[in-house]
This record gives sequence, structure tokens and C-alpha cells, in this order.
Amino acid sequence: MRIDLHETAKILENADKILLLCHSHPDGDTLGSAYALARALLGMGKRVRVECSDPIPKDFSFMLEGIETDDFEPELIAAIDVADIKLLGKESEGKYTGKIGLCIDHHGSNMLYADKVCLEADSASTAEIIYLLLKIMQVDPDPVIASCLFTGVSTDTGCFRFSNTTVRTFEIAAELAKLGADTYNIIQVFFETKTKTYAALERLALDSMRFYFSDRCALICVTQDMYKRSGSNESETDRLANLPRQIEGVLVGVTMRELKDGSFKASVRTHGDIDASAICKRLGGGGHMGAAGCTLYGSKQQAINSLLKEVQAEIDAVTIV
Amino acid sequence: MRIDLHETAKILENADKILLLCHSHPDGDTLGSAYALARALLGMGKRVRVECSDPIPKDFSFMLEGIETDDFEPELIAAIDVADIKLLGKESEGKYTGKIGLCIDHHGSNMLYADKVCLEADSASTAEIIYLLLKIMQVDPDPVIASCLFTGVSTDTGCFRFSNTTVRTFEIAAELAKLGADTYNIIQVFFETKTKTYAALERLALDSMRFYFSDRCALICVTQDMYKRSGSNESETDRLANLPRQIEGVLVGVTMRELKDGSFKASVRTHGDIDASAICKRLGGGGHMGAAGCTLYGSKQQAINSLLKEVQAEIDAVTIV
Repeated sequence: MRIDLHETAKILENADKILLLCHSHPDGDTLGSAYALARALLGMGKRVRVECSDPIPKDFSFMLEGIETDDFEPELIAAIDVADIKLLGKESEGKYTGKIGLCIDHHGSNMLYADKVCLEADSASTAEIIYLLLKIMQVDPDPVIASCLFTGVSTDTGCFRFSNTTVRTFEIAAELAKLGADTYNIIQVFFETKTKTYAALERLALDSMRFYFSDRCALICVTQDMYKRSGSNESETDRLANLPRQIEGVLVGVTMRELKDGSFKASVRTHGDIDASAICKRLGGGGHMGAAGCTLYGSKQQAINSLLKEVQAEIDAVTIV
Repeated sequence: MRIDLHETAKILENADKILLLCHSHPDGDTLGSAYALARALLGMGKRVRVECSDPIPKDFSFMLEGIETDDFEPELIAAIDVADIKLLGKESEGKYTGKIGLCIDHHGSNMLYADKVCLEADSASTAEIIYLLLKIMQVDPDPVIASCLFTGVSTDTGCFRFSNTTVRTFEIAAELAKLGADTYNIIQVFFETKTKTYAALERLALDSMRFYFSDRCALICVTQDMYKRSGSNESETDRLANLPRQIEGVLVGVTMRELKDGSFKASVRTHGDIDASAICKRLGGGGHMGAAGCTLYGSKQQAINSLLKEVQAEIDAVTIV
């Protein structure tokens, strides 16, 4: 059942032992949103635990500071920024199926797997929703909570550059800055710092860029061999996803990454009316209008071909009107 | 004489024929600030002309739309975002020396060459100052004025990424978004779009990156030969300036560009306490704490050496305490 922010606030206020779940391969929005909410609920005297099936990258460790792990049987299990129960990771999926009482999310593709779903697909990030939720719950965010939320707000908008950025995004960013969010360092860490190994990987990735469909699609493919040559690894690939779409005239930017098992993770970024999530849905994935992903199998060339086929179908559907 | 925003407003309100001057090699802040102010003053029924000694790049053409060139003898000549009269360009410098009644600027290095100077060195951009000035002048910015100002606010902060970005920057960005600034397209044009020729130049530039002083300084040098090989040219080099400083551990990022006459323009970007403007001042240039520039002569190696000498002096001065 879909519920609004006020009902969401009531559900949280009425529970005393709350487990918050993040999606696997965690990003700034799922972690920032969950830890901001956890800190707010802890401040209200509740017992709270945040779980993620993957380790939390060190760049996010400020979010965990001062929070002790608490072991309890939860009264309420809430998934934060998790569009599909599968995204919890295999083990957690089995463990929590049918038990998730609440989901707070901004993905239009949300599978509505939770009892109650607070879904705002127009919101650029789940962090924006949490910000509004805390207002309703009359929580005064401290600088760490503000920093958690600013991490979600900035990372899910590519630092205010993606088309999901709205007037509200800027307003909330300003409010969070005023509340003491460490905006400068957050932006430095997530957008303005490249390790030498990432910089080397980026150059190899850019060298692999190929153009299709009269230059309306650009595709880069990151291979395991490139990790070896650059000294980099999969953990540094998230930012590559935006590079192909930056080229002038490109409507669909694709970044493929070869996984160790030989399959390929594809990140699709689009401009204008081209629906990235439509492309990825047809390949078993999902996401947003402008940014989506899926997993591809077979040889590198087969993976590229099956993706390009769907890219072409989507470009044709939108541009031939 | 230094004056505040209220006195600045009065000077502008009391003049009827106003000439606004931008610096040469114009950027988003000098143009966005000057055209926002011009549009506001035109709306008040005044005669206004904006002058720049260099052609205005096409990305800024929206600022000029609907403004007709007006030929008149100005009562007031105001330089906008121009730190030094030399930056007007040679011809204009000669023409306007001793005649500039007002300067509105945010460069701490401002040479105070104008009769009255409204200087706010803490402001991330001159556009922020103009925004506050229009408030005092009780101008309600229309969407085009808001877009002009947002261009200045975003470009001078590297889209909110530089250390000059403050809470006020975010607040003004939110206000401008609310007033109808075309934030998405402005950010796309200035930050998220690369021509194919620029992308090729960027790769050549990154290939030229060298590290000095235990990797605390990274330097790239763009040569005329690179323009030939990439099909790019000097007009596309502004964004290269931020690349060296992005590498983890780098405190001073230097981007040198070979000009047609064989001299080199150097852009210096620093982190933390390292003062870019101190480095550049010793070489005849200037700028801000985190971003400054200068021109170097001699062979490529001589130019690099003289710059590195000042970089080392500054690193030593700051890190050996």
C-alpha cells in the first residue's frame, strides 16, 4: 500500500526497535538516507540498526561514527532506497522476504514489495524524502545528519548536474549547508578526487569509447584486463558511467564493466526523452528515465550487441514520431 | 574608494547612460554579471551598453537576446568582475584608463583602479554580489536575469565544487532556480558537454601529466601540436585547468597552454593553505587563493621550470611550519 510522508512518520514514531536496510553495492543515497534516519531515530531514544549485505566503503565511514551495533529483534523492518527486494543481496532477500514493513524510495521502478511504501518518484534522491520526513517528525538535523543527507542529495544528482535536479534539490542543499553539512569535503571526496589508479583506468576506458547510430550512442567497455593494467578495480568504476553521455550529440551513453564471472554490468545514461529504464527493463534490469542498469551475459561482443539492439529500438521509438 | 552595496546601488540609480565593461577572454561570471545588471538597468528605463574586447562565445548568446546595441556617451563606466584594468584588453585599457567610475568585483587581487570599488573578496562570484545588489535595487529578476546570474554562480564555483562555495552560494543558487533560471541546460552546456575535439584534447592533455615534489604537484602542458592533433583549439581549454588538482594527494595542479606566439598561459589550482595567487603574483599574474593564473615566456622547459620554482617555494612555505 502506498502511503504519504505523514503516515510514514507515524509508523516510524510508533516503533521502538527498527532495522533499516540498504541496497547491496551501497551508494551515497541508500547509506546517507539510512544513516540520517537512523541517527534521527536514535536521537528519539529508539533502538536502531542499519544493515547492508556489502561492506561500506571507507568514504562513508563518517556516517557510522558514534553509532554502536545493536542486536535486537526488530519490530519494524524498513528498506531505504531499495527499489526491488533482490537489490538487498541474495542472503538478505531470502531472510527478509515478506517481512519488510516499510519502504522509503524514489525509484519509479519500485516493485512495491513492502507492506507500506512511501514512494516519491519525482524526488531526485531518497535523501530529499528523508529530509522532508525529518521535518515532519520535528527532528532538528545535526551537522552529521545534514552531511549524510547532503551525500545522498549530491551523489544521486551527479552534484546537481543530472536532469532529476529540481528547485527543491537546490533548496534542500542550501538548507543542509546551513545546518552544517560538510558540503566541501563531501563534494571533494565523491566528485573532485581521483586516485591515480582511477585516473589511469579512466584513460583506458576513454580509449575504448566507440560511437554508434550516427554518434547518438557512445559506449565504453571496461575489461578485467584494464583493471590489471591500471591497478584499479571495480570499486572505482561508478563515475565512469557518466562519461559517454557527456560527448556532444550523444543521446545514450553506455558503460559496460566485465565482472570476474565473465558477465557484464551495463550502466545506461540518457538525455531528453530516451528512457534508460525502458532499455534496461527489456534486459532484466531497471532504474530511472535518465539512468538505469542491467546485467548481460555471453561474450563481450554478444553483450554489446544485445544492448545496442535495445538502444536502437529506444532511439527509433523516440526519434521517429 | 571602497564602497558598499547600498552606495553602489545609489551610483547606478543616479546614472542614466551606463557602460558596463567585461574582462577580455570573457567567462561566465563577467558576462553573466554584466548582462544581468544590464538587463535590470534597462528594465529601469536606463540606456545601457555592455562591452568586451573579445568576441562573446556562442554558449553565452542567450544573455544578449533582445538587447539592442545602443550608442551613447556614458555618464558612468562600470567594470564588472575586472580585477585589473589590464584585463580589459590592450585597446580598452588605453581608452578607459582614469575613466572608470565604478568596479564591482570579487577578486581579492583587485587593483583598485576605479573611482569607487564594490569589492567582496569572500564572494564566490561577482554574480552573487550582483544578485544582492539587485535585491537592494528592488529588481525582481526575470528568468533570463536569473539564468545570467546562475551562469556566473555555477561557473565560478566549478558547479559548487570549489572551496569558494559557501552556504550563501547554495542559497542564491536555490533562489535563482526558483526564479526560473535554466539551471539544467546551463550546467549541461558548461559542465556536462564535451565536444569530440575537446574530449580528444583532454586525453592528450592527461597523457602529458607529470608529477613533482613527491606527487604534491601535477602539471599538464597543452601544446599547439595537441590542438592540431585533436582538432581542438584554445577556446576549449578552460576546463582542463581543474584536472591536475583532482588527482588524490595533489596540492597544486598546473595547466599550461602554449599560445601561438610561443608564450605559455599557466592556470594554477590549489588545495588547502597553498596560495595559488601568491605563486602567480611572483610571476606577474594574480587571482584567488585557490585559483590563479600568469603568463610565462621562454621555451616550454624554461616556462615549466620557472613555475615549478615558485610552486616549490609556496609548498615549502606552507608545509614547513
